[in-house]
Amino acid sequence: MKEMFSIEPVSRNLCRLLKNKINNKTKPIGSLGRLEELALQIGCIQNTLSPKLNNPTIIVFAGDHGISNDGVSPYPGTVTKEMVLNFLAGGAAINLFCRQNDISLKVVDAGVNADFEHNPKLIDAKIGYGTKDFLHEPAMSISQAKLAIRKGAEIVKQTALSGCNIIGFGEMGIGNTSSASIIMSLLGNIPIDQCTGRGAGLDDAGLAAKQKILSDAIKAHKIDRTPISVLSTFGGFEIAMMTGAMLAAAERKMTILIDGFIVTSALLVAEKIDSNILGYCILAHRSNENGHKLMIRLFNKEPLLDLRMRLGEGTGAALAYPLIVASVNFLNQMASFESANVSKAIR
Amino acid sequence: MKEMFSIEPVSRNLCRLLKNKINNKTKPIGSLGRLEELALQIGCIQNTLSPKLNNPTIIVFAGDHGISNDGVSPYPGTVTKEMVLNFLAGGAAINLFCRQNDISLKVVDAGVNADFEHNPKLIDAKIGYGTKDFLHEPAMSISQAKLAIRKGAEIVKQTALSGCNIIGFGEMGIGNTSSASIIMSLLGNIPIDQCTGRGAGLDDAGLAAKQKILSDAIKAHKIDRTPISVLSTFGGFEIAMMTGAMLAAAERKMTILIDGFIVTSALLVAEKIDSNILGYCILAHRSNENGHKLMIRLFNKEPLLDLRMRLGEGTGAALAYPLIVASVNFLNQMASFESANVSKAIR
Repeated sequence: MKEMFSIEPVSRNLCRLLKNKINNKTKPIGSLGRLEELALQIGCIQNTLSPKLNNPTIIVFAGDHGISNDGVSPYPGTVTKEMVLNFLAGGAAINLFCRQNDISLKVVDAGVNADFEHNPKLIDAKIGYGTKDFLHEPAMSISQAKLAIRKGAEIVKQTALSGCNIIGFGEMGIGNTSSASIIMSLLGNIPIDQCTGRGAGLDDAGLAAKQKILSDAIKAHKIDRTPISVLSTFGGFEIAMMTGAMLAAAERKMTILIDGFIVTSALLVAEKIDSNILGYCILAHRSNENGHKLMIRLFNKEPLLDLRMRLGEGTGAALAYPLIVASVNFLNQMASFESANVSKAIR
Repeated sequence: MKEMFSIEPVSRNLCRLLKNKINNKTKPIGSLGRLEELALQIGCIQNTLSPKLNNPTIIVFAGDHGISNDGVSPYPGTVTKEMVLNFLAGGAAINLFCRQNDISLKVVDAGVNADFEHNPKLIDAKIGYGTKDFLHEPAMSISQAKLAIRKGAEIVKQTALSGCNIIGFGEMGIGNTSSASIIMSLLGNIPIDQCTGRGAGLDDAGLAAKQKILSDAIKAHKIDRTPISVLSTFGGFEIAMMTGAMLAAAERKMTILIDGFIVTSALLVAEKIDSNILGYCILAHRSNENGHKLMIRLFNKEPLLDLRMRLGEGTGAALAYPLIVASVNFLNQMASFESANVSKAIR
């Protein structure tokens, strides 16, 4: 898959000048903590001392999962479709948080098990009416996985045409923590039980049953551990599409906001395809879904927020966005010791 | 001091109804984590199912410290004045973050060692030209401390007249981590070394010297551990004024955003005066100043952000504010399972 994308490593050309600029702002050196790291990262990504955030956009990919018929979620599969309608009506958490923070929101049907009436707010990229049940057969074919990756990339390409240079991803899909857990286990080489959590709210018995199902599902398939095999055998259409979307965003040198457990599993696939992507990514938050903490550790990156959230939809990315704006604002607008006539440290 | 303020405990009348409202939003129960706790807290504070955030305001109190002459800070004391001028010119971090998040900013001269030209943006509440050096004598008299508390309360009273019902506090004062550390040690009953940090950036030798100075300063005074004695002997004018401001804000049932190390030390004093204040407070962030983690534990509350910041000025409060807006937005605007026709959990 690597040949599909051409991702340059993030430039380090201006690293030293950016650090100088940051250190000359009227504050003790290092005292803006993570915001200084963000300013440096975004300055490097955009290769400028004065980065700008243009047309911030969050794209929510929705898809259904055959595995949801096996009792891995406390919610019925129909909720995927119902929540897509909720997104289109503007009533879901991600709608509010995007409105609050001036983020454009796009909703994509990556493979929901329902037909939607035409709606200009909904992007139709349907690969199928939900994946197959990976307890018994591969969730999708290799060609479906590749098609999903291409469609995700195409959607980001269109989004970039609007001038967007900072993009976040979210998802909706009953059952998709199951896909994410197996992807994490196989690509991260971590025992499946440590990758499995309560999803939308399983009780102890439900969690134990889910762990058994996922363990059985892994045993049911003989696969190599290439990203595309893992993705097609266990992935969701929305996860595959996010993988392509992320790779295309990094190719375009966009800053990428990574949301929670499922979005991070797509990053895991993308990173196996081209690890240069990581330099463009900001981990927006630590999800409360069991396993996310461990998954994040695979990237050696620290999430910005830790609010015990586990909602998905890109909500963590939308809530972290003002911190990113703040980092760029201080870099661009804050006075320097010289400009404000403030004395520097004397010891 | 308790008789100066009349702070009711936060009402629990609507607690159950608020929880029901939160649980009926289209999301798995509990999946908005800390945001759900914030929505509940603010609903209870305002005693309504539909809280509103009106005229959010951050007040930055500035004051100078006699102790700064003893080498407890890497910056010269003149920086307090210079930074006040930076605030008035709009170039400091707190200016940008308030502008970004639509927060009104007020700057108060609580006791800077300089005269300022008249400026409509600066509130003159000067108690003196900096405190005395508490290594040798009390930082201020008891009557100065009480005057500062009254002036802080008066400023909040004026702010409330604008309709403001959510308020944050910030500070500027070279040397004021020293005051905060001793307040923490004496009122929190924690050895001074565990309360002492690098402030604006001391190196190891500077930190060791600061620890010795603070330890000597404590030994130099024979005081009871009442909040007013501790405050007047070791406090800064800005800390005393914040104490009064916080108590007045709780009296008016405002939601109070607590910033970092120094602001939290003022809360420690206020809480000893009337512990009912705590129900009105949100800890905005964990400062990277050594000691803040331990100080926060005294309140059994969790900060919202942890970004390794240690700038002061109220910057943590300003950056946390969008999360508080998000909590109220979801409570007021998000669809319920019924309104959006979304199926509930089936197991």
